[in-house]
Amino acid sequence: MSADGMNYAPIGKQAPVVAPGEFAIAAVGLDHGHIFGMCNGLTEAGASLKWAWDPDPQKLDRFVNIFPQAKRARSEEEVFSDPEVKLVAGACVTSERCALGVRAMDAGKDYFTDKAPLVSLKQLEDAKAAVARTGKKYAVYYSERIHVETAVFAGQLIDEGAIGKVVQVLCLGPHRLNAKSRPDWFFKKANYGGILCDIGSHNVEQLLYYTGAKDAQISFARTANFSHPDYPELDDFGEASFIMDNGASGYFRVDWFTPDGLQNWGDGRAIILGTEGFIEQRKYMNLGHHHGPSHLFLANGKQETHFNLAGKVGYPFFGQLVLDCINRTENAMTQEHAFKAAELSVKAQLQGDAQSGR
Amino acid sequence: MSADGMNYAPIGKQAPVVAPGEFAIAAVGLDHGHIFGMCNGLTEAGASLKWAWDPDPQKLDRFVNIFPQAKRARSEEEVFSDPEVKLVAGACVTSERCALGVRAMDAGKDYFTDKAPLVSLKQLEDAKAAVARTGKKYAVYYSERIHVETAVFAGQLIDEGAIGKVVQVLCLGPHRLNAKSRPDWFFKKANYGGILCDIGSHNVEQLLYYTGAKDAQISFARTANFSHPDYPELDDFGEASFIMDNGASGYFRVDWFTPDGLQNWGDGRAIILGTEGFIEQRKYMNLGHHHGPSHLFLANGKQETHFNLAGKVGYPFFGQLVLDCINRTENAMTQEHAFKAAELSVKAQLQGDAQSGR
Repeated sequence: MSADGMNYAPIGKQAPVVAPGEFAIAAVGLDHGHIFGMCNGLTEAGASLKWAWDPDPQKLDRFVNIFPQAKRARSEEEVFSDPEVKLVAGACVTSERCALGVRAMDAGKDYFTDKAPLVSLKQLEDAKAAVARTGKKYAVYYSERIHVETAVFAGQLIDEGAIGKVVQVLCLGPHRLNAKSRPDWFFKKANYGGILCDIGSHNVEQLLYYTGAKDAQISFARTANFSHPDYPELDDFGEASFIMDNGASGYFRVDWFTPDGLQNWGDGRAIILGTEGFIEQRKYMNLGHHHGPSHLFLANGKQETHFNLAGKVGYPFFGQLVLDCINRTENAMTQEHAFKAAELSVKAQLQGDAQSGR
Repeated sequence: MSADGMNYAPIGKQAPVVAPGEFAIAAVGLDHGHIFGMCNGLTEAGASLKWAWDPDPQKLDRFVNIFPQAKRARSEEEVFSDPEVKLVAGACVTSERCALGVRAMDAGKDYFTDKAPLVSLKQLEDAKAAVARTGKKYAVYYSERIHVETAVFAGQLIDEGAIGKVVQVLCLGPHRLNAKSRPDWFFKKANYGGILCDIGSHNVEQLLYYTGAKDAQISFARTANFSHPDYPELDDFGEASFIMDNGASGYFRVDWFTPDGLQNWGDGRAIILGTEGFIEQRKYMNLGHHHGPSHLFLANGKQETHFNLAGKVGYPFFGQLVLDCINRTENAMTQEHAFKAAELSVKAQLQGDAQSGR
């Protein structure tokens, strides 16, 4: 795992669900380092990474250096016209992700995009229309749940009834800014979408997932730039409260204030309160101690338990996604859920910006 | 410390600021176990506990058993008419605290009440009028900050600039219900005031204190009874968001869902995000580990530090309060601050109840 959240790329175990060559994929749009995590997950699930493409030769060099099995395409069209390619994984500039997906789906491919999957309600309409028109998938890499072992395990615990009925999910998503390492588009709101849309989308997805809700009302949202005047379009802080359609509460805070002395890029937490107990995830580190990632704490009617889950849970999302593409099922994540998280993230951003006059 | 939050009564060190007999106090109104913590703090600061009074002889028995130096009064009037008594400490039923305070102040005593100090805006007016009329103090035992060593130390760190400018304070105040051990009034909203007014007031006070704000807007508030149909007037969940008058954000959640397997009555946290670092307080326990109370984690530009503060910080509030009463200063806490926390707690309760239709 990189110390930089932008390049968070967990390595799991080989758990192929298909034979070599049976499910070919391509990486198109390499602007965000999440593409490495996405391709790690898919190739561990048995996908064959056949092509890579980005208009920037340096990004392409870096990618094929890490994934040498990928052929350097000469154009996006070369990838899209290959009938062997079943799925296109993309992590281009956030504002371009929807257009890339629509092109990929129109070329007959399923699409797997980095989060945020889109930055506006108009793009959401376009994406939904493309899904309806093509029958293809617009899947999303909400990595802070699907590519985090505590997050996967928390879902399993809730399903088993370990904490009763979930009444609140509260997520903290701090990130290290590393401003000088970031590309220009990262600081342009039209490109990155705003903090609630961008890293907020991880959290909205978790609120929906852990509460089991299908939708939510946004009770309150706020964005701010507290201390980065050199980057006026950067939201360095965001928060939002939700009342889920099943009555549970949801709250999250995201920020770019991880200090340099922290062992990792962010002390991400998710605290899930149930009627019969609660769960705390310390996803990437255990604050104050160098114990590595993947700490989950469960308290219920019997006891408190500290689970160190590193290497013990795996990432079932990727194998499920590969099989979903083959079988046209929705076991990894429903399209409705992926779009709803995006919708609420964009709406929270609009509400937060309006609140703050940003 | 008791395992029951209702009887949370930390024992500190003897740190007298006055000579024996120099500052006499009385305990009047013994309904809530917080009276023990209040009297611990004051007597450690050198106050002489001269009288105790409650109309319930059993409560009086229990109290003088623990504080044998206190004489059993025969009436409230006996206490109030003693000119030696400088301060009346009270923890009666929440809805009666304002009236007790007004009587005490009109009798020429300073007043130190358990939180919540009052349950309505009308009571706030009455309390403010009594302060103006008598020149006496209406001090409040916001124990989750003033009687918690991590909370005191966090304030010191912020004052030293350890985390830069505070941009958000987020508090979690879970409590164990122990419904069968609670008196009837505890479940009557007119008496306890609602969860945001009651245990919420601890948290509002912390938001004001750690952000250094004088006032705040309530952005969102919610109360709920998720799973206690036998106690319909109990709010088992509450949350509220604030924008402080200096721009910082504040959020807290309170609840009565501490599960029986937890080592303590509640895993209270306060997470303070600054522009140059952050602080996490694990006030009463370190989840998953039996390390006792008083854990504070500081992350800043240099490092992460885990402080175990048990017995190391003390509770300066009490000595300051005694001296404030003698010198008519406001070093422990200003009257304005104590009332503002109460005001915002009551307003959050009203807003939360309206939101929820409760």
